[in-house]
Order: sequence, then structure tokens, then C-alpha cells
Amino acid sequence: MRIDRTALADLARGAAFLGSGGGGDPYYSLLLGEAELARGETFELVTLDSLADDALVVPCGWIGAPTVSVEKLPSGREALAGLRRLEKELGRKIDAVLPIEIGGGNGLAPLMSAARLGVPVVDADGMGRAFPESQMAIFNIHGLSACPSVLTAACGSLNVIETDDNLVHERVARALSVALGGIAHMVEYPLTGAQAKAHAIGGSVSAAIAAGAAIREAREKGEDPFEALYAALAASGLYPFAGGLFDGKIVDLERETRGGFSVGRVAIEGFAGAGRMELEFQNENLIARRDGAVVALVPDLITVMDLETADSITTERLKYGQRVKVVGAAAPAMLREARALTFVGPAAFGFGEAYRPIETLNGWDKG
Amino acid sequence: MRIDRTALADLARGAAFLGSGGGGDPYYSLLLGEAELARGETFELVTLDSLADDALVVPCGWIGAPTVSVEKLPSGREALAGLRRLEKELGRKIDAVLPIEIGGGNGLAPLMSAARLGVPVVDADGMGRAFPESQMAIFNIHGLSACPSVLTAACGSLNVIETDDNLVHERVARALSVALGGIAHMVEYPLTGAQAKAHAIGGSVSAAIAAGAAIREAREKGEDPFEALYAALAASGLYPFAGGLFDGKIVDLERETRGGFSVGRVAIEGFAGAGRMELEFQNENLIARRDGAVVALVPDLITVMDLETADSITTERLKYGQRVKVVGAAAPAMLREARALTFVGPAAFGFGEAYRPIETLNGWDKG
Repeated sequence: MRIDRTALADLARGAAFLGSGGGGDPYYSLLLGEAELARGETFELVTLDSLADDALVVPCGWIGAPTVSVEKLPSGREALAGLRRLEKELGRKIDAVLPIEIGGGNGLAPLMSAARLGVPVVDADGMGRAFPESQMAIFNIHGLSACPSVLTAACGSLNVIETDDNLVHERVARALSVALGGIAHMVEYPLTGAQAKAHAIGGSVSAAIAAGAAIREAREKGEDPFEALYAALAASGLYPFAGGLFDGKIVDLERETRGGFSVGRVAIEGFAGAGRMELEFQNENLIARRDGAVVALVPDLITVMDLETADSITTERLKYGQRVKVVGAAAPAMLREARALTFVGPAAFGFGEAYRPIETLNGWDKG
Repeated sequence: MRIDRTALADLARGAAFLGSGGGGDPYYSLLLGEAELARGETFELVTLDSLADDALVVPCGWIGAPTVSVEKLPSGREALAGLRRLEKELGRKIDAVLPIEIGGGNGLAPLMSAARLGVPVVDADGMGRAFPESQMAIFNIHGLSACPSVLTAACGSLNVIETDDNLVHERVARALSVALGGIAHMVEYPLTGAQAKAHAIGGSVSAAIAAGAAIREAREKGEDPFEALYAALAASGLYPFAGGLFDGKIVDLERETRGGFSVGRVAIEGFAGAGRMELEFQNENLIARRDGAVVALVPDLITVMDLETADSITTERLKYGQRVKVVGAAAPAMLREARALTFVGPAAFGFGEAYRPIETLNGWDKG
């Protein structure tokens, strides 16, 4: 499938939602992608099934604090330099690229990287959303190695990382991203085609496109974009439940860039005194409490959206006074398995609350 | 020249002095070296002149806070893994190794690394003493690139760094050393034989051995080890002036590990009310003030020595109550050139004082 200008914008819109507040602002990636299309570049999306078992399939994306990504421009050479270097490391050509995370700008960026390299993008990703740390990828959860990985920065610095400990890999990559200006491109978890088929979260790129298209089409028809989004997510099969968690106005916001992350919390007051919602985030929104009661927990998705336009608002774009709807969605099933929850469940982020599915917490599974 | 057990201990003693308080405690390297000799290993020292112009000559050593180096043991595989990886990067065998800095443990460690690789150590180094940062090497001062460099850590993590900016290289390497536990091995500034001859500080390994031997022999003969040290340093041609700056007892000490460095200051009170000396250090001692007046400035050497034994005391071994002699020595001429002072002079460490030679400040040049 060719991704055209409309699909690219839909992907940006859908990836912004799936970012759960993180993954980097997709707006910049969208502009870059549109410029590439205008120059005659093509973005080719292929299914996991189409990959040869011995293909070399490479997840990639940007690492760093989203607050930096909206202020510091890339050089444009990072991704290709990293991919070429990985080819040199492994002594063979890369056959396809996939997003390490479908959420936010990282859902789009690999399109440009793949086009530069002349290979397709796989309709799959490594997180089914966005997460702040590298070891939260499903490939680590399933025991695959992140290395060799290649981290490249706008200044031209290139770093090859080799370690058999994916937590050390994350620590090293994070330290590098901070040392190199807060944001860097990473090529990691090189996979065989067979590994990609067994472990990647398949269909997430097309799910993001469908989610974005649903919002666009509802707007065009004057229908409710939120209801259209929920239906599209459920229809994708990846995100079986979705719904609104809270409507209100942002009345309090704490946010700082710490250790390479955007960390903070936001409070939203309901209209006409209808309660209060509080979210905590580390790049991504991690927990939602309504009047003190937990209504959504990582790895389920929590995205703050503009109440009028249904545009997703990343954590670095949150502002006092915004009128918003907080939307939640069930995470892909792979992220809810017991082993996955040790890496991406509430405890992995320091929360004491045990994971409970968003559909249970909100009664969405009772019809 | 073969370095035997006596020469190895002399090198440790001399390198400790040339470390100017830093470079890592040589004691651990000495124990390792003695164990290698006992196993039948040989340490071969060759002159710069003996190198072929197209030889591949590789400086190496440890990076990190000395306070960590005395607490965290290496795995023993770091150096060889890094050297082998550099060979892979450059597609050729390494012909010889040299210490990136002659000061402290880093003056000895390359002997073991070279022996593992089966190549000799060159009688030369990249700093003529020890400095806390990678870009303070004479190779950077003379415009050579630090990259490709390879950083390896005890956990098995290996990182190849490529950047054409040696300051970025230092920042990246420092961040990696912190992320990997505070200490790591680095192979950097790969040189041709011709470059080594043109830029390395030649004769510094044998100067360190001679300095250590002078102290040992004076002790054996019941002579003044300090006078013997000053004479040996002057005789080496590299350190033309040396002498005592102050005798006293340590009465105050501030030291913390910050940003990957040991940073602090020490105050020494003269005996019988004979004034006060204060030193400031960042891994290495950088400035000495006697009763408020500057008497020695980086890049000249400032080493705190035990008043009775003439053992050098690294900054991480300083303790309240130690009875010490502060000894200074003129830095090698290459470090005093105008371009060098921009990298290793007082201003490079944030001091407002302009550099003045230690022999001028203390009247040693007036005979």
C-alpha cells in the first residue's frame, strides 16, 4: 500500500492519539513527510506476512524528551546514517523498517527513514502505542536483544551500542541522548523477518491511519469525531475498547524535563463543578484518577484531546485553560500479558496500584 | 626494554607523582601488573623512534571518577575488547599501545592491555601527566580526532563513538562512563606512527620509572627521597623544575563525586603556625595557593605526598590529619604553548588567574 498525502495526515492524527501523550509531536514529522511526497518520494507500507523469514527488519525512531523535540531541529541525516551503520555492523542490507513505537511522531518518522534507504515500512510496531523507555518494547519483553543498536544525533555524532542487557542499553541510550542535546535517532532491536512476525504488534500503522481517517471523516460529515475514533479503534482489533474518561478544563499543570524525560502531572476540572481528573505522565500519560479513583492505568492508553477539534494534545503541548476530553483505550493484548506488565504495567513506573483493564474500571465491557 | 617487577613498582610510584593527584590510584594496576609478571607475562617498552610511520598506535586508559575506581573492580576484559573492536573498526591490527595519560593508574594500565594484545607499549603518552577530560590530550590540542573511539565497561557493554568534534566526544564518553557505573575503559585518538612521533609526549614512561626509582633508591640509602625526585624529574628533560611548595597537616577537606568527577578542595596548615596552603581539584590538583597567593597553576604539576614516605596521595585518598608535603613540577613544554593553555590552562578549569610558570612563581629559575 502506498501512503499518500491524505493517509499521511491520517497517520499523524491517529499516531498522535496512540502516543498516549508521548512519542514526540507528530506535526513536525508530518511536515517533513509532506515535503518528501511533494518531491516525488513514495512511502510503501507492507504487511508482516509479506516479509521473508530471513529478512533483516529494523525498528527505529527518536529517543529523548518530547519537550526538546519541538524546539531542536534534526539535521535530517540522523536516520540514514544510523541505518547504514547498522548495515555495516551486520554485513548485510536492511530489507524493511518499522516504527519502534506507533505513537506520536515516531509513528511517522520511519516512513521518511525507509524512503531514504529505499525500503518499505512494515505495518507493525514495537509498542502498540508510545512508551518512554527502550526496554518497554515488546521485543525486550519477549527476550530479544536491542543490540547492536546505533544512536545518531544532529551534530553528526554516531554511537554503536553493544550490550546483552537491554536495561543497560536503555540507560546508555538515554545518557547519550541527554549528552547529545536531549534528542537522538535510534536504530535498535534488529529483527529477522520471522522474529518480526512472531513478536511485532502487527497492523498498528494501518490502525493509526484508520483512527486518523475516522476523525477526519466525522469532521467532514459534521459527526462526532470521538465516537468515530472509538469505533475505528475497536474495528482495528488492536484496541478493542475505547471511550471518553472526562471532559473539562486544564486548571493545573506541573511539567519538567528531568533525566531526559518530560515528567509531570495535569489537573482537569469538570464543567459546572462536575468533578476533577488528574493525570500523571513520564513523556506519556500513565495514570488517570477521577475524583481520586483510578479509571485508567498504563499500558492502557490515555490521551488528552481538544474538546472541539478532537486533536490529540501531547504532554509537552498541555496548557492551562485548554478545554479537553480525556480519552482512554484498551492496550493491545500483547501488552497486557503478565510478563509484559512487569515492563509496562503500573509498577514499572513506580505506581502502587495493580493493573486493572480500562474496560473493567469503566464498565465498558458490560455492554 | 623489558619492564620487570622493580621497574613496574618504580613506574607506579613515578606515575602516582605525575598524576598530580589524579589518573586513578596506581595501586590496583600495580597489583594486576605484578600478577601478570608472576604468570610469565612480559611488558615491552619501545621508543617512539622505533615505530614505523604507518604503524597503528593506540592511546588507551580508564575514564571516570577516581573515587569510583578504588571501589568498583574491572572485569579484566574491558581493554582487550576495546582494542579488538578498534581493530575491527579500522580493518587492521594495532601495532603498539600507549597511555593516554602517564599519570596515576593510567600510566600502568596500558602495559597489561598491550600484553594481552601481544604488542609493545610506547615510551610516550598523551598528557605528560593526568588531566580529567579527554580533550585535554595533546592529540586534541594538536588537532587530531579522538574517533573512532571505543568505550567498554565491566558489565560487558561496548560503545563505538564517532564524532568529528572532540568536545562532543568527551561529553559522550563522560555520559557513558557515568551511565555504566562511573568508570570505563577507553581506546581513543588512534594514531599513525608518524602522528605519534610528531605529537605524543615522548619519554614520559621512562621518566616516570626514573622518578619512581629515585624515590626508592633514596629510601634504600637513607637519603632525602624528595630531593632525589626533583633531580630525577629535572634529569628527564620533560619536567625541568621541581620542588617542595609546602609542608603541613591536612586540616580541611571537601570532596564530592559530581558529573563523573571527584571535585573538591583541601586545606593544609603549616607546622608551628607556618601559614596555610589550599588546593582545588577536579580529579587532579589544579591550583595551589599559599596564604592566598597562587604558587602553582595547571598544567604545572601539583602532588600531595606523604611527608615521611614520599608516597604520592591521590585526591581520592586525601584524609584529614595526613602530614604531607605538597610538591610541584614544571609541566612538559608542549603543555605550556599558547594553544595548549586554552585547553589545559587555568581558564579551561574556570579559574580567573592567568597561567604563570611554577618556576617563576617560586623563584626556582633564579638558580
